[in-house]
Amino acid sequence: MNKIPVAVLGGTGYAGATLCELIDRHPAFELAFATARTPGEMLSSDATVIPVLPLDEAPLESARVVFSALPHGVSAPWVERAKAAGARVVDLSADLRPGSGAVGIPYGLTELARDEVRDADVVANPGCYPTAVLLALAPLLRRGLIAPAATISATAASGVTGAGASPKKELMFAEVTDNYRAYGVGNAHRHVAELQAMVARHGSDADLVFTPHLLPVARGILATTIVPLTEALSDPAALWRADYRGEPFVEVASTPPSLRDVVGRNVARVFVTVAANARRPALIVISAIDNLLKGAGGQAVQNANLMLGLDEGAGLPR
Amino acid sequence: MNKIPVAVLGGTGYAGATLCELIDRHPAFELAFATARTPGEMLSSDATVIPVLPLDEAPLESARVVFSALPHGVSAPWVERAKAAGARVVDLSADLRPGSGAVGIPYGLTELARDEVRDADVVANPGCYPTAVLLALAPLLRRGLIAPAATISATAASGVTGAGASPKKELMFAEVTDNYRAYGVGNAHRHVAELQAMVARHGSDADLVFTPHLLPVARGILATTIVPLTEALSDPAALWRADYRGEPFVEVASTPPSLRDVVGRNVARVFVTVAANARRPALIVISAIDNLLKGAGGQAVQNANLMLGLDEGAGLPR
Amino acid sequence: MNKIPVAVLGGTGYAGATLCELIDRHPAFELAFATARTPGEMLSSDATVIPVLPLDEAPLESARVVFSALPHGVSAPWVERAKAAGARVVDLSADLRPGSGAVGIPYGLTELARDEVRDADVVANPGCYPTAVLLALAPLLRRGLIAPAATISATAASGVTGAGASPKKELMFAEVTDNYRAYGVGNAHRHVAELQAMVARHGSDADLVFTPHLLPVARGILATTIVPLTEALSDPAALWRADYRGEPFVEVASTPPSLRDVVGRNVARVFVTVAANARRPALIVISAIDNLLKGAGGQAVQNANLMLGLDEGAGLPR
Amino acid sequence: MNKIPVAVLGGTGYAGATLCELIDRHPAFELAFATARTPGEMLSSDATVIPVLPLDEAPLESARVVFSALPHGVSAPWVERAKAAGARVVDLSADLRPGSGAVGIPYGLTELARDEVRDADVVANPGCYPTAVLLALAPLLRRGLIAPAATISATAASGVTGAGASPKKELMFAEVTDNYRAYGVGNAHRHVAELQAMVARHGSDADLVFTPHLLPVARGILATTIVPLTEALSDPAALWRADYRGEPFVEVASTPPSLRDVVGRNVARVFVTVAANARRPALIVISAIDNLLKGAGGQAVQNANLMLGLDEGAGLPR
Repeated sequence: MNKIPVAVLGGTGYAGATLCELIDRHPAFELAFATARTPGEMLSSDATVIPVLPLDEAPLESARVVFSALPHGVSAPWVERAKAAGARVVDLSADLRPGSGAVGIPYGLTELARDEVRDADVVANPGCYPTAVLLALAPLLRRGLIAPAATISATAASGVTGAGASPKKELMFAEVTDNYRAYGVGNAHRHVAELQAMVARHGSDADLVFTPHLLPVARGILATTIVPLTEALSDPAALWRADYRGEPFVEVASTPPSLRDVVGRNVARVFVTVAANARRPALIVISAIDNLLKGAGGQAVQNANLMLGLDEGAGLPR
Repeated sequence: MNKIPVAVLGGTGYAGATLCELIDRHPAFELAFATARTPGEMLSSDATVIPVLPLDEAPLESARVVFSALPHGVSAPWVERAKAAGARVVDLSADLRPGSGAVGIPYGLTELARDEVRDADVVANPGCYPTAVLLALAPLLRRGLIAPAATISATAASGVTGAGASPKKELMFAEVTDNYRAYGVGNAHRHVAELQAMVARHGSDADLVFTPHLLPVARGILATTIVPLTEALSDPAALWRADYRGEPFVEVASTPPSLRDVVGRNVARVFVTVAANARRPALIVISAIDNLLKGAGGQAVQNANLMLGLDEGAGLPR
Repeated sequence: MNKIPVAVLGGTGYAGATLCELIDRHPAFELAFATARTPGEMLSSDATVIPVLPLDEAPLESARVVFSALPHGVSAPWVERAKAAGARVVDLSADLRPGSGAVGIPYGLTELARDEVRDADVVANPGCYPTAVLLALAPLLRRGLIAPAATISATAASGVTGAGASPKKELMFAEVTDNYRAYGVGNAHRHVAELQAMVARHGSDADLVFTPHLLPVARGILATTIVPLTEALSDPAALWRADYRGEPFVEVASTPPSLRDVVGRNVARVFVTVAANARRPALIVISAIDNLLKGAGGQAVQNANLMLGLDEGAGLPR
Repeated sequence: MNKIPVAVLGGTGYAGATLCELIDRHPAFELAFATARTPGEMLSSDATVIPVLPLDEAPLESARVVFSALPHGVSAPWVERAKAAGARVVDLSADLRPGSGAVGIPYGLTELARDEVRDADVVANPGCYPTAVLLALAPLLRRGLIAPAATISATAASGVTGAGASPKKELMFAEVTDNYRAYGVGNAHRHVAELQAMVARHGSDADLVFTPHLLPVARGILATTIVPLTEALSDPAALWRADYRGEPFVEVASTPPSLRDVVGRNVARVFVTVAANARRPALIVISAIDNLLKGAGGQAVQNANLMLGLDEGAGLPR
């Protein structure tokens, strides 16, 4: 069987490298080419040499699927070119996501938008943090169960691969080990717009305060989200179990997830419980993903599989 | 000058060992004895051998100050005995803290209760998490600025020494490294009662949802607290700067603190900022401490210094 | 196709758990049962419940292959019973290895003893450190190239899973992180007898000094072996390439290996170079393995595959 | 009392920053100025602003002691200028060390060269690895106890601060965590010349094979050195105890040292034992230091203290 030629724009960051690995193991994809700022060579698993090209020499017409892992701000015009060249495109940048100002582009949080993704030429792949937080909140957003005028707190922590592969002082081992700190504090992180746009789309007027933190681990995101409710729920987990029944890549857990449960796997693992000892009803929802898989390259492949009519889980580690 | 004889009950956990080290370097204290479940010997810095005794052989009358680092539930009667033997007592267990049911015992969050501590025979030393969270919240609690009916979210992360020194499978290196997870989820942690009692003491009816997490680091706590407000504050940090002006052990920072800023030091470092892009006013307050110093042994020595009329910072690393 | 029933004695340590996982993914094996000191239940990947039994209830006759991951000293009689019950046995303990006094049991360092393993009823699976060191030394031992009266230095470092899964103070996160230390110093480690017996079997009278160290990582062993030679070698790597040509589980590398290269894979990766600036010829050989795979469970499955006439690499991650 | 004005050339690397901290706490030194590639400002502990200058604006004549933490190759001419300006100079680069070709400069391994250091205008501060290895070997070198024609193996491991503070891909957290690897393999590390020159100075013709490794820790060096002997020694540790009796900064330990024992302290901790089960006598010597203190800035201050007739331990953490 001939494999489907697939390209990765921006193949040398952590997300791009993850995409190249996933494509390499995918039963139906083959890597046509990848681009990088410093072109070199890259070996596929079968010792086939895959060319790594400068971005402006990318032969877009040779790929049926293009993943763009280009930096925010750089990606959008290349998505347009790839689409014009006839490829289906999954954009991993923030350029086309909710809150970016772009319109008409399906938001590829797969479990919430499967039909839109299937029909799309271009999909905006969600940010890693929004994937974790929105899969945690969706059952409440859909049912209008978040208290009006509520302040939702989403406090999340990520491994350092979420911050990219470029050498920076603050990402060196000696700075990260034995340490933990918040960043983008004050609703200042790029993902806030994406999160708030999705809350608003569901008709909620709740505020969402998002505070990311840097963990001394390589991979994984864990988000702890506190949500005031309109009413007390006696068995809140039942809503998550109902909404994610049959979902191959969402696990509703009966104990709080840890990074260990999800790293190396294209899944989101979600746990929900009631805040006891409180006068007003509130839930604590904890969700964990691998930031490079379900939070980036894995979900991108999941979306591409849908767009091409393949099995949604093809090539993805569960 | 003769030094003041000081004892440590429960000297072999991390808090007890920290106390022994602090006493060893203290200009006015000397370690009279320590107790341990498995008695042995322990060397002071000047190569003086300090006896480690079984608890029931503790010569309480030989110490002018007794620190109890005994387990919760075990500590209270020993505090009583030490007091009866004429010692001033700092209890590091939860037995006498707010929310425990005990009455009339000053709560030694030093900066909030300096005068009570000075006059006390017995002080309940705060838990590590409550120290971090309450120093973050105090300027709002005192001024009644927390929105009525608000749900405060305090999401905190601690190094493993906060979980004690007894060997347990879940605290082994291979289980903790590369990992991160919540525990005591659902307002189930022992410190919730202590936190909520202190919020209520200030006349607030806000709910506080507290979710601790385990970090792959040895020491340090960082708490991220989201607080809905009664009104917008244009310069919220001014309140913290005003309240903690001149405090030797609280630092109001202009950038978010990291564990690195506080580990090895008896300080709390606090940062506050407004939640931008929100319809309703809310603050994000981030506070960091060393769980074994300002969160346990350091604050205990700070309190003992006050109780004995010594310089509050004697023997404490800043 | 009916799968081959396989048992694991001692299924709850790290090596035993690794075996259970490998069996679960093996195309031709299925886990018949495992034993544990604290029996409970264990789920296979297909949600089939596998019984975990107390050792003395083990139905040995129900398994065609038995892996013993029992402690040293406990294992040997169970190996005998399993053999008597008709099973082929791979013993992961030290009880039957070279240097133990046991005779006539093939030593399952697969690449050096493939034919013996194929025909054996019982195989002594090598220790993790000896696997790394002996694959590094074999090309010199076979050719008699080690200087007579030489002192070989094998200095190795292992992740903590090599020290077992039982909770011990010295293996807790707070003790291991930020730390590094030697143990079993002075040729006192259990693996010394195994190493020295294998050196002697090859007719060398060289001394081997082995010093293991504990790394703050979960998995992996890296051994750095310094070997005085009888004569200078202009292209020493050629010997390793010749000896390991076609070996699926030994990689001769052109740059020094790191733990990252081998963790999660059933391979040994070896690098060799000349000690420059020296008057007398010596080689530096660096070898790396995953202590739980090529150093324990992986090599055990590799041996079992051979014993049953299966593809040697069946079920093993490369 | 007026403090002695002291300067640091190259103040922003890890060694330079350590020097600035040590000077700041030194009872007799004050930092006159530091230089850096990117000048900014640096605060001393008393909130005095210390100027950080570009190197070519360094007012060398204003300092009585100059520490050069400039890069290898850059340092030597600045040492010359500082000396010409009348300062006593401690050079932390490799430019003037044994094996560099420079002559007549005392090698400041303090315990081995105290008298030379006292009288020197310029001292070459030893490399971090040679400090660990040579303090381990000195009692044998001095007594001629190393076997003729021996190959000594010194296998050492260092935390990442030994590799400098400049951002590099291979020093990022995601690359270093969970990893361990050798570098400078094949007697290719810059410190080999320094080590071999010192062995030769003692009249030994032994070869020394040195292999450094990178540990996933921030600080600390541990060296494991295997030495064939001329004769068996029944109590080898007695030699080390005799040679280092009364030394404030060398500890002869009765158990193998760990990084924990030395990090944060200006000491070398050494353990020695016989290689058992060997036909020919050999010792295993394990030594540990903090690479930034006894391995760099601490030893530099120790030397400067001697040069100025101060207490050798002034300002140094033991």
